Amino acid sequence: MSEVRNTRIVLASRPQGTVTAENFRIEALAIPRPGTGEVLLKILFLSLDPYMRGRMDDAKSYAAPVEIDAVMEGGTVAEVIASNNPDFAVGDTVLSHSGWQSHALSDGGGLLKLDPALAPVSTALGILGMPGLTAYTGLLTIGRPQPGETVVVAAASGPVGSAVGQIARIKGARAVGIAGGAEKCAFVKDVLGFDAAIDHRAPDFPEQLQRACPNGVDVYFENVGGPVWDAVFPLLNTFARVPVCGLISQYNGATSSQTDRLPRLMRSILVKSLTIRGFIYREFADQRPAFLREMSEWLRTGKVRYREDIVDGLANAPEAFMGLLKGRNFGKLLVRVS
Amino acid sequence: MSEVRNTRIVLASRPQGTVTAENFRIEALAIPRPGTGEVLLKILFLSLDPYMRGRMDDAKSYAAPVEIDAVMEGGTVAEVIASNNPDFAVGDTVLSHSGWQSHALSDGGGLLKLDPALAPVSTALGILGMPGLTAYTGLLTIGRPQPGETVVVAAASGPVGSAVGQIARIKGARAVGIAGGAEKCAFVKDVLGFDAAIDHRAPDFPEQLQRACPNGVDVYFENVGGPVWDAVFPLLNTFARVPVCGLISQYNGATSSQTDRLPRLMRSILVKSLTIRGFIYREFADQRPAFLREMSEWLRTGKVRYREDIVDGLANAPEAFMGLLKGRNFGKLLVRVS
Repeated sequence: MSEVRNTRIVLASRPQGTVTAENFRIEALAIPRPGTGEVLLKILFLSLDPYMRGRMDDAKSYAAPVEIDAVMEGGTVAEVIASNNPDFAVGDTVLSHSGWQSHALSDGGGLLKLDPALAPVSTALGILGMPGLTAYTGLLTIGRPQPGETVVVAAASGPVGSAVGQIARIKGARAVGIAGGAEKCAFVKDVLGFDAAIDHRAPDFPEQLQRACPNGVDVYFENVGGPVWDAVFPLLNTFARVPVCGLISQYNGATSSQTDRLPRLMRSILVKSLTIRGFIYREFADQRPAFLREMSEWLRTGKVRYREDIVDGLANAPEAFMGLLKGRNFGKLLVRVS
Repeated sequence: MSEVRNTRIVLASRPQGTVTAENFRIEALAIPRPGTGEVLLKILFLSLDPYMRGRMDDAKSYAAPVEIDAVMEGGTVAEVIASNNPDFAVGDTVLSHSGWQSHALSDGGGLLKLDPALAPVSTALGILGMPGLTAYTGLLTIGRPQPGETVVVAAASGPVGSAVGQIARIKGARAVGIAGGAEKCAFVKDVLGFDAAIDHRAPDFPEQLQRACPNGVDVYFENVGGPVWDAVFPLLNTFARVPVCGLISQYNGATSSQTDRLPRLMRSILVKSLTIRGFIYREFADQRPAFLREMSEWLRTGKVRYREDIVDGLANAPEAFMGLLKGRNFGKLLVRVS
């Protein structure tokens, strides 16, 4: 019987633009032993999210970059397999931020016990976790959709976008989703129940989007940037709100235009009284209890649906992550670690 | 004795970029007679404001453009010299929106009676009028300066900027003003009491601004755009707020950069959780009573000071307006019409 090892993926080098396999290195170490007050976690699921691209760069952001040779960071769902901490028992399932590895120690700080009877534990990384809270707080606190208004969101089959559109509809707004390809668009419209789904790969994508928004756009939930932004921008109505939670299209290098788009943006902000507001969900942490209560109820009653895209094996995390940045995932991307 | 005529200035042609004298035409017509329910106004003061540049273009904005051959629009303070309206007596002084002319008819709609005993009537076009309300609502509702925070505003000797900085200081914030030239800077610092005043014409303007904002910038009240924006932008703190009420530097044609500044802006909005919010004062009309109460008190107690730049004679309005767009005025620009 081979010894069980702690498999982990570290940042080998910082990407020059597009992330490549060479930016990662897989390592196998001895499994650490929990010290006084510590627990040993076996990671069940690792969440892969666009924000991780930012952590690979050594640039000023809201969080410190991952150091070279350090474990890639990330949200995880884990099982307690050894415990020297009275608050956690062997067999407990917890939400942790243990990163891209198969095992981790924790002193219990930041661990959140999950109830597997309430919902599949993987949802703590998706619809009931950071992506869901991002959608809920950004849409309701910044976007504030009113009944009859039009809400547009891209990556609409993904964990944030899918929640944004469904919550918008619950609030009486019209939800228009943007996704890549016919399969995702069908899912957005037919399964998630958006009012319209537009394929951003279509050659006439801007025209299709305009036709899907006959009354303009009141809320654009920005999580991609790039060509989608260019298509949505002229459709924004007076007093439109633009919560900005991500810019996945420019993470692998800025998507510049031949012309300087800043003066036009500023003029529109002025003459349309636009609100553009960046945020991360942590700012709204006090809304988590309300979010969990409401979202659990919406899941229970079928008002909100979600889709997971699960990749097996930690060794496949780098490739899955590179695919995520290109929109290859279909639903919340998770790695089943063990 | 020569007959008194209604002198007026009309939009002769739309500017191609920079406004020129040829875009205006002066006319003299018979003075109209008030019909039933109407009053005849003799204009005392005409306000010249940057927003008027937008009205000269035939582009989508928050207000309709001035038509070719129509009187240039603008706020005015006027005296009632004939009245068929029971609400207004001959001799009343009123705030009106009569435009660039010496006389005007009104059915009384939109007229606001002024009390010359309360404050000089010209202030209804400045510190107690639209510019003051713009500063008050944009700063307090969108900017929300907290004690100890740093507020930066350009055109700081002008009617909006001067009020922004002084209100910021009343609220306990640090006020940094940007102005053009040593004389204006001295006025901003010594008379208006800003904590610092920086000359945007200085070759090391960005460095000077940075030194004046050792703790970064929490509120940038945007009324100019252009190079000032470029200098302020890197100094913005996490959660900084940017109310946008004007972009005077780009009114005579967009000030483009060689590179596309949009991706960098969007990234900063994201990683710094910035709020950028365009507005016009009309959105906050319900705050006018509170504004008038507070601002009158601040004027009475000397907490807020203001400066007017008065040009004599309507015929000089075009040249004064062209100077305004180049920052040649020093204080609230008014035309003494009669």
